[in-house]
Amino acid sequence: MEPHFTKVAIIGVGLIGGSLGLAIRKRGLAGTVVGVGRGEANLKTALERGAIDSYRLDLEEGVKDADLVVLCTPVATFPALAKSLAAIVKPGAIVTDAGSVKESVVSAMEAAIGSRARVVGAHPIAGSEDSGAAAARADLYEGAKCIITPTASTDGDALNQVETLWKAVGSVTVRMGPASHDRIFAAVSHLPHMVAFGLVNTVLDMEDGGFVPYSGGGFRDYTRIAGSHPDMWRDICLLNREQIVASMDSFIEHMKRLREMVAASDGAALAGEFERAREVKKKLA
Amino acid sequence: MEPHFTKVAIIGVGLIGGSLGLAIRKRGLAGTVVGVGRGEANLKTALERGAIDSYRLDLEEGVKDADLVVLCTPVATFPALAKSLAAIVKPGAIVTDAGSVKESVVSAMEAAIGSRARVVGAHPIAGSEDSGAAAARADLYEGAKCIITPTASTDGDALNQVETLWKAVGSVTVRMGPASHDRIFAAVSHLPHMVAFGLVNTVLDMEDGGFVPYSGGGFRDYTRIAGSHPDMWRDICLLNREQIVASMDSFIEHMKRLREMVAASDGAALAGEFERAREVKKKLA
Repeated sequence: MEPHFTKVAIIGVGLIGGSLGLAIRKRGLAGTVVGVGRGEANLKTALERGAIDSYRLDLEEGVKDADLVVLCTPVATFPALAKSLAAIVKPGAIVTDAGSVKESVVSAMEAAIGSRARVVGAHPIAGSEDSGAAAARADLYEGAKCIITPTASTDGDALNQVETLWKAVGSVTVRMGPASHDRIFAAVSHLPHMVAFGLVNTVLDMEDGGFVPYSGGGFRDYTRIAGSHPDMWRDICLLNREQIVASMDSFIEHMKRLREMVAASDGAALAGEFERAREVKKKLA
Repeated sequence: MEPHFTKVAIIGVGLIGGSLGLAIRKRGLAGTVVGVGRGEANLKTALERGAIDSYRLDLEEGVKDADLVVLCTPVATFPALAKSLAAIVKPGAIVTDAGSVKESVVSAMEAAIGSRARVVGAHPIAGSEDSGAAAARADLYEGAKCIITPTASTDGDALNQVETLWKAVGSVTVRMGPASHDRIFAAVSHLPHMVAFGLVNTVLDMEDGGFVPYSGGGFRDYTRIAGSHPDMWRDICLLNREQIVASMDSFIEHMKRLREMVAASDGAALAGEFERAREVKKKLA
């Protein structure tokens, strides 16, 4: 069954929020979609592209009477945003998000507005090199995973409504606790970015960057990953610190063992490690 | 001035050797090009595609009377191949190679045949996901760097002839000592591969690989790099052990410092590191 909301307020109408607005409007899942933000130029783009029905620069005006509020601003803004929403959100409304870190922000959202609104954490696994409402696409979430992260205090009806919304826009939803989410994404997303930043800077530190012009395919792939937004990754580190530290510790231990195999000229062990890594593609197919 | 060889023998007619043969024949840089190998099917493909004028399965027949012999087999085969060539190569001939490791193999080649033939080490920086004579392209080396690695005992005329050959097929040549080559490529090529193998296996070790299905763009780029030939990378580790260990040590220290910044919630230091890594693209442009 398709969900239907009377009024959806999307706070932050960039690639993620704008694509959600386009998908909701295309499928008629809401009576009206209001965009809320600080940058009017981007909101106008969102309006022109059909991602929202209207926009507000004022948070209170934007979320007034909304039965669903979706936080799509940078994840570091969520705790303060939740505090602001506490006094103005419609009692009983559903407040959800699209942040890439869950335990700390869901906990902050629940503490700030859990007694007035129904909080449901979510993380759609989608993105692109581009950003802003101009890059939004109605099909961004089609076939993409969306992790829904209920806690002990999550309202069951709100959970179902958020999950059916993400399914309705084409996502494959998976439910898990916020801590499990953060542990998994520390490994498969946050760690690969930390490693790319570290690898690129290690090479930059050699001969004042003089080795870089000799790089081929391998190194260049790292520079693309390391080209991600510095502020966003700083925030992710601060908000998922413990899990990222744990995954970096596992990785550093792994690199030390690999280093010992090279130092010992242990060709059989090295070939075994390389063969094992190569096989991962089968798990991705 | 374009070089001209009476007879070029290419040992190993895969992507690298086959592309060199195509480029030499297309530009008329040799009277005849003979392919030497053990797999007749691949040699037939090379002949059909015009990469060679003829082929031989026997090394002695193949290199007989050749004034240029190019080793394009896997780099681990070079020391034994050089010993075999010592008794059969034409006195005064030039013996060069296309191996991705230089100090150990150039030294082995010089020791084995330096008194009879003129050894010049080279490493064309080119490749592709595909391999074999079927993947060879006449333009593979156009615009690509080719590192030429003379030593104190390199013959000046032979050095010039090898360098002009690579220039004639479109490469941008750079001369440096074998040790410098190995230090640079340990950093920009070998280390990125070691790190990709290590990262992929770190994630595979978590929950019996159960995290892999949640991976997005970042992790998948690593699986592509880690999909390289296990045997080739084992050989590179064995042949460039010291430089790879040194680059891994630098990287591990770097990751430890980054880990401490995360553990300390040092947002300013983290953003600085991430910003610095992002800037590398400017050096690549």
